[in-house]
Amino acid sequence: MEKIKTALIQHSHKGTRRDNFAHITEEVAAAAAAGAQLVVLQELFSTAYFCQSEDAALHDLAEPLDDDSSADGFQFAAQLTATHQVVLVASLFEKRAPGLYHNTAVVFEKDGTVAGRYRKMHIPDDPGFYEKFYFTEGDLGFRPITTSVGVLGVLVCWDQWFPEAARLMALAGAEILIYPTAIGWDPADDEAERKRQLDAWQTVQRGHAIANGLPLISCNRHGFEPAPDSCGYGIEFWGNSFAVGPQGEYLGQAGTNSDQTLLVDWDKKRCEEVRRIWPFLRDRRIDAYADLLKRYRDD
Amino acid sequence: MEKIKTALIQHSHKGTRRDNFAHITEEVAAAAAAGAQLVVLQELFSTAYFCQSEDAALHDLAEPLDDDSSADGFQFAAQLTATHQVVLVASLFEKRAPGLYHNTAVVFEKDGTVAGRYRKMHIPDDPGFYEKFYFTEGDLGFRPITTSVGVLGVLVCWDQWFPEAARLMALAGAEILIYPTAIGWDPADDEAERKRQLDAWQTVQRGHAIANGLPLISCNRHGFEPAPDSCGYGIEFWGNSFAVGPQGEYLGQAGTNSDQTLLVDWDKKRCEEVRRIWPFLRDRRIDAYADLLKRYRDD
Repeated sequence: MEKIKTALIQHSHKGTRRDNFAHITEEVAAAAAAGAQLVVLQELFSTAYFCQSEDAALHDLAEPLDDDSSADGFQFAAQLTATHQVVLVASLFEKRAPGLYHNTAVVFEKDGTVAGRYRKMHIPDDPGFYEKFYFTEGDLGFRPITTSVGVLGVLVCWDQWFPEAARLMALAGAEILIYPTAIGWDPADDEAERKRQLDAWQTVQRGHAIANGLPLISCNRHGFEPAPDSCGYGIEFWGNSFAVGPQGEYLGQAGTNSDQTLLVDWDKKRCEEVRRIWPFLRDRRIDAYADLLKRYRDD
Repeated sequence: MEKIKTALIQHSHKGTRRDNFAHITEEVAAAAAAGAQLVVLQELFSTAYFCQSEDAALHDLAEPLDDDSSADGFQFAAQLTATHQVVLVASLFEKRAPGLYHNTAVVFEKDGTVAGRYRKMHIPDDPGFYEKFYFTEGDLGFRPITTSVGVLGVLVCWDQWFPEAARLMALAGAEILIYPTAIGWDPADDEAERKRQLDAWQTVQRGHAIANGLPLISCNRHGFEPAPDSCGYGIEFWGNSFAVGPQGEYLGQAGTNSDQTLLVDWDKKRCEEVRRIWPFLRDRRIDAYADLLKRYRDD
């Protein structure tokens, strides 16, 4: 098996968990019927993007994600996976212990068992994205997850701006980089700024694909979600979920404002070909990289 | 002084050192008259790209680059700098000792004195680019060079594929990333591959700009240079020198097949603005990056 048909399910928040589950169920069934072996959902797919304000009560949305979890999102994803015999990347709000929560991607194997977990390592915090209030930084490190369709370098959203995360996944044998994400515009941003931000978001991720000779998938939500209080303007999630090959070349791209399930094929053999002509891993100067472990080189 | 007017001088190899110097002299005079404060020359600007074959005799092209060097390229660059009162980034073939050579960028201050040096750290080696034969890996590390127009993160060509190099320059206070380069197509490459390579080359560098919130300049040569022996097909250097701001947005771009001096203004204040909305340096997980110092994470 060299080509992996993969579905990216981009959608707006449908109002309730049940509504989101219904939409995703339909889309996964169609994607599986079309031959998808791997499905990637957007970040925190089961709910609204709830980090627009700091509200302690919203921790109620979190769920335990241990293997025998009976939580809604976990059970939904596990059953969906087993029903359609696909590998699924599901981003969920994890309750690990009272007062200890993570933004966690669970990867399900085709039979609905857990193949592995990734806890979001880089946590953002800026107006409208108050994630440091909700999510403790991940402590599982940058470790790809082995599945029947390949070794998946699963990262989450804000990780996408950090070349270190992609590199560590590549060095650990990832065959693809995968980012469930929830990113959008501040409605106050003008057109030029919107264009720069959207373009930068795709470009920096395409850069990771190129620097590591790996395909990359990024699945974003779309649609406007209002702020829950009078302090915010809401977020216009910008969609544009996309997939690229190991030279950063587009394999597919969704629109800005629509529910869309993107089907792409990525080729495992291509990585080897590209890394032979661009052997960056051969030439890294690991003897001179020690200061990457510093906050800043001002000492 | 916040905006720095900068000239990127993209040209073909003119046949002799003297011819290259004559062309550059004209272009720098015009750029300085137009207000340029900083000038970036392409990689190994004084000669053909001589690494298309492994020929020990070609080490004759190297020159000592100590501060009182009387070598052609060094003296040309120093005098040009002093004449036009610009800061100049000059990529030269350095003879450090018998049998010890580097691919070195010398940065000249406006009075023609040396502001600093950078010895290319990542050395490529692939068909037509036999650089490991000629150049010893740099041993000055990734250290930006302080000048009257700013703190310059000067890197060279192959370095442009390595996010580590850009990050280390940013962490050391670089205000801009600058890459003299010599990159082109194998004439045997088809159109689709050419497009992917050129696009990847710009994209990965724009990614460094974005990930670090820094402007970036890349100055390439153009034109076909035949292989010196029957083993090679020659290289079609692809031009397309470009400059971007800290969100990866284009400030200017040259064509594929023409001598062109690109004048761009980059804004020092923009870095601070962009890093406030995208505070990536705040959130790096330096506690989890140790394996970046490994060749591969298979132990």
